Amino acid sequence: MKLYIVGIGCGSRKGITIEAEEAIIRSDVIVGYTVYIDQIKSFYPEKECLSTGMRQEKERVELALRLADEGSIVALVCSGDSQVYGMAGLAFELSVSYPDADIEVIPGVTAALSGGAVLGSPMTHDLALISLSDLLTPMEKIEKRLQCAAEGDFVIALYNPSSKKREDYLSRACDILLKYRTSSTVCGYVRNIGREGQECRILTLGELRDTAVDMFTTVFIGNSETKVINGKMVTPRGYRNV
Amino acid sequence: MKLYIVGIGCGSRKGITIEAEEAIIRSDVIVGYTVYIDQIKSFYPEKECLSTGMRQEKERVELALRLADEGSIVALVCSGDSQVYGMAGLAFELSVSYPDADIEVIPGVTAALSGGAVLGSPMTHDLALISLSDLLTPMEKIEKRLQCAAEGDFVIALYNPSSKKREDYLSRACDILLKYRTSSTVCGYVRNIGREGQECRILTLGELRDTAVDMFTTVFIGNSETKVINGKMVTPRGYRNV
Repeated sequence: MKLYIVGIGCGSRKGITIEAEEAIIRSDVIVGYTVYIDQIKSFYPEKECLSTGMRQEKERVELALRLADEGSIVALVCSGDSQVYGMAGLAFELSVSYPDADIEVIPGVTAALSGGAVLGSPMTHDLALISLSDLLTPMEKIEKRLQCAAEGDFVIALYNPSSKKREDYLSRACDILLKYRTSSTVCGYVRNIGREGQECRILTLGELRDTAVDMFTTVFIGNSETKVINGKMVTPRGYRNV
Repeated sequence: MKLYIVGIGCGSRKGITIEAEEAIIRSDVIVGYTVYIDQIKSFYPEKECLSTGMRQEKERVELALRLADEGSIVALVCSGDSQVYGMAGLAFELSVSYPDADIEVIPGVTAALSGGAVLGSPMTHDLALISLSDLLTPMEKIEKRLQCAAEGDFVIALYNPSSKKREDYLSRACDILLKYRTSSTVCGYVRNIGREGQECRILTLGELRDTAVDMFTTVFIGNSETKVINGKMVTPRGYRNV
């Protein structure tokens, strides 16, 4: 019947939109990655939930599509937004085999925006989001995008900046950015956005290059105008000069 | 006292997050651009609201800061997200003159995500947001960003694609993109996202070049892998090939 692909925001229950919460409440069953399903269970204990593990994206989406195709109302939950590095694209790709699953995408607040709000207001001007994970994207393509985003003076948010197997990826990304931006460029990162143990730091691009972050962290690179005001990372848009 | 800079999402009341709604309810006064204040008034008729007109961003932010500095709890509302082409950056910039205004940024769902969800799932991979308005940004910088985003094969969302004074800006942007992308690149646009009269269309970059859109429209340019599946605009992330 119906498959909602729902962005639930980052961390805190209160970061979800009203329409996303309504879709979850309306659904017969909630499908998602183990970590997000545990979160959903704590918010909506009465709901039937099914989870699949990390890297089982295809299995997870097919499970949700099959249940919807067979007549259930299903919510497939994604952290942050349902499109941005989420499951909505794959659901449409696989949906051709499940003609009775009617897909509706419900957006959410992605980590670039919820993490940015913790740091101040870095994402105030033209911006680029780049994932450093090369599980699904060739490294050459990621490096080309870093280079283009730096050259275009975009504010940049880096998703998946590190993992056990990719400990030096953030340093390598910073080396590319440092070809176009000064080492004093204002940067920041937020770990565990909206969750217990949330922490953030503002630092320079030069310092970021030698800083270790983990996979629960989103990294922010300012543009050439980004500055620190009262301890906050702020990108001006230019209104002040009008 | 307290100044919440609140992203209220696009159009529909249900696109707001729970924390954004709570901040509005908690506030003594709501400040915003006339159009959004009319919307807030229809949602929360009991609230005291103050509005300023288009291009009065500085006056609007100073009004909100002054009220908070004088002891009120104030919500300054922005369409979509509070950072992305919103007021949060300017609020921090001007806050140095209002030391008792404690600013908290509350993010929201920006048009790239809410509009993308209407079209399908275009924003599934690395993405760039670019505003075509040259009121606050030199045209050369906008053109450089278009060129870099196209060269990096980002999915692109264009904000402020047109206005009465800038009727040909979208065509000029498409001409830059066409140097790097084929004219068959999948594109789309959504007008009046989440509002009455919402309309959307999927078309090629070649067709988009010769299409007139208005200032209530958000435009989406696919990357080299974006395709149309069952009438939806979909950017794959690569999970299918894992």
